[in-house]
Amino acid sequence: MIALLTDFGLQDPYVGIIKGIILRIHPKVRLVDITHQVPPQDIQYGMLCLKSAYRFFPQKTIFLAVVDPGVGSQRKPIIVQTHEYIGVGPDNGILSPLIQNVRSYRIYEITHDQYFLKPVSKTFHGRDIFAPVAAHLAKGRRPSHFGPRRASMEKFLIPKPKIQSRKALIQGEIIHIDHFGNLITNIERHHIPRFEGLRIKIKNHTINGLSQSYCQAKPKQRLALFNSMGHLEIALHQASASSFYKLTKGAKVYVYWNLFKRWDQ
Amino acid sequence: MIALLTDFGLQDPYVGIIKGIILRIHPKVRLVDITHQVPPQDIQYGMLCLKSAYRFFPQKTIFLAVVDPGVGSQRKPIIVQTHEYIGVGPDNGILSPLIQNVRSYRIYEITHDQYFLKPVSKTFHGRDIFAPVAAHLAKGRRPSHFGPRRASMEKFLIPKPKIQSRKALIQGEIIHIDHFGNLITNIERHHIPRFEGLRIKIKNHTINGLSQSYCQAKPKQRLALFNSMGHLEIALHQASASSFYKLTKGAKVYVYWNLFKRWDQ
Amino acid sequence: MIALLTDFGLQDPYVGIIKGIILRIHPKVRLVDITHQVPPQDIQYGMLCLKSAYRFFPQKTIFLAVVDPGVGSQRKPIIVQTHEYIGVGPDNGILSPLIQNVRSYRIYEITHDQYFLKPVSKTFHGRDIFAPVAAHLAKGRRPSHFGPRRASMEKFLIPKPKIQSRKALIQGEIIHIDHFGNLITNIERHHIPRFEGLRIKIKNHTINGLSQSYCQAKPKQRLALFNSMGHLEIALHQASASSFYKLTKGAKVYVYWNLFKRWDQ
Repeated sequence: MIALLTDFGLQDPYVGIIKGIILRIHPKVRLVDITHQVPPQDIQYGMLCLKSAYRFFPQKTIFLAVVDPGVGSQRKPIIVQTHEYIGVGPDNGILSPLIQNVRSYRIYEITHDQYFLKPVSKTFHGRDIFAPVAAHLAKGRRPSHFGPRRASMEKFLIPKPKIQSRKALIQGEIIHIDHFGNLITNIERHHIPRFEGLRIKIKNHTINGLSQSYCQAKPKQRLALFNSMGHLEIALHQASASSFYKLTKGAKVYVYWNLFKRWDQ
Repeated sequence: MIALLTDFGLQDPYVGIIKGIILRIHPKVRLVDITHQVPPQDIQYGMLCLKSAYRFFPQKTIFLAVVDPGVGSQRKPIIVQTHEYIGVGPDNGILSPLIQNVRSYRIYEITHDQYFLKPVSKTFHGRDIFAPVAAHLAKGRRPSHFGPRRASMEKFLIPKPKIQSRKALIQGEIIHIDHFGNLITNIERHHIPRFEGLRIKIKNHTINGLSQSYCQAKPKQRLALFNSMGHLEIALHQASASSFYKLTKGAKVYVYWNLFKRWDQ
Repeated sequence: MIALLTDFGLQDPYVGIIKGIILRIHPKVRLVDITHQVPPQDIQYGMLCLKSAYRFFPQKTIFLAVVDPGVGSQRKPIIVQTHEYIGVGPDNGILSPLIQNVRSYRIYEITHDQYFLKPVSKTFHGRDIFAPVAAHLAKGRRPSHFGPRRASMEKFLIPKPKIQSRKALIQGEIIHIDHFGNLITNIERHHIPRFEGLRIKIKNHTINGLSQSYCQAKPKQRLALFNSMGHLEIALHQASASSFYKLTKGAKVYVYWNLFKRWDQ
């Protein structure tokens, strides 16, 4: 199975072309779209998608992840192999979720051009390099077949929240606004030492405590919860927090506790 | 086969996650998207999509329909079984088209949590409950396996047009604006007693009679017809009626006849 | 395999309906989407998509291409067969890329209504005619089964650039703006007699020479290159040329050479 993740959008025929190439090489392969609507060149968002999604896929799934602002430059095409999955894409960090918290993995640089579509363009390696390589991997070729091993690869890290225990404060930021208008932050469950007495500050608004579900609030009411990915999310029940708060990616979100009941007590 | 209908959108990885889970459980299942762009939480539109589409699918298709504003509340997850199809989703009316005009059907509440993804989140039952249940249904598990039978389920009804025979008037409304900008009303063919002398009033405009096809009008000309779903539709030939009339869902549309030639004569 | 190309969009259930019908007739067929987001009724863009994509698909692929502003009029439903591919759709030029530069091909008018969904609507031939015909073709029915041969079909030609050798000038135009905001012109590689000393004029801006890849420019810098489809493309590195130039389809783009070094010298 090949799972596809790109920033190609769905209006142009680029995704169809990628699929046509793969199916010409391996007509029986299973293709599943994760998304093709990563904002253009937004490696961070592509990586977030891969991070949230890959664990739910069957073992041996090949992730073809192409968000590739450096196409045509010196950035290398790579294959990442773990015990469970294989990733194919540019070496710009998009594949890094596959090896986070994984003990053993191998990285290969794709140099063997036997399977490339020639002439290889300098603008569409998804078509000329990554799609045929993914198809041949799905057909059973080993990753080592495509080039030499490398010791490391680029990592693209989500900014970490700043934690100031003394001040009983966590400063995070919005890293994504989803389709429902929910504001998703970089604050994860394990960043929170104590759930009692917690407040969230966003713009001029304060939210007291966390909800378990959207429905705990009344319609259009403000709420915060840990979402299904384990991230702190600012939401409105049955409405768009994005329209309400009018904030964009990168805006600050604070979690704090009553100063008189310090969390580290 | 599983046909998917959600309001998850295509930018987030939610649909990909659902598919990954299904394919991990049942690698050979066939997946078909009806749409994932139901406007967030718009059960009525989701239901309209299912109503227009389900009959065209092969017998035994499982419809996984997740438009779920009540996720995390007391609304129940259910399975609906008819002679031809199975539906899986929240009990909020979205599945109701499957049993309209169907004599015999069974409804099951999903309580058996053996197949759920644990811990079950309170925000993403599509992932944790509905996807694994649909996958196991497709693999051959019987609906009765997942919980007890129930006598009834929520129904979500499209508002009916008001028919005033005395005044030779039908008052309907726009229930959907499609991708082409066509205005689709709740007036169906069977509401119309007589097609001669019929006029349509929308905003300040009057349309005389019905067209058979868009092409009967000149480019950009106003027209009305019964569309491929059997609903009265206000359109412009090769242009967007939505841009022209600047109306939104819920706006009134009138069908009337010359008062001197009453329809009931 | 059936590859689908339509202007149905992804919000309405139309694409799902088409797929349901095909799968009811031929449950094992492979379905691949090229795009469903051709702008409504934009035959030229649909044709451009087919032109860029079809060569990458496996032999014997059936292209179901429905951009059909003339639905319900006298335009005919046709099948086009070449040695490698089959096309099904309205006779309005959308299928013409399949026979460009192809020596031998056959065109059939679809008249045999045995497989149509009845009653055939006048607004949705994708559902009632093209989908069932494509499914039966994929199942092995010969094109000749569906109706009589025809000598010719409509062609929809991309406007050609004007070439004025004397003035060392090529005048082209923007024929498409892609998802990344790249401006794609009708000027192809073979229109350019000499790459040295070439300049591009677009609006008030001049671009000197061609880049090989987006990365040759600095971020946000203007550039021009021949893209992966072989068309001259005006781009910004890691940004949207469409937002920068604020031009629409049809806007003029000039390629010229220093008048003192005439290209024909």
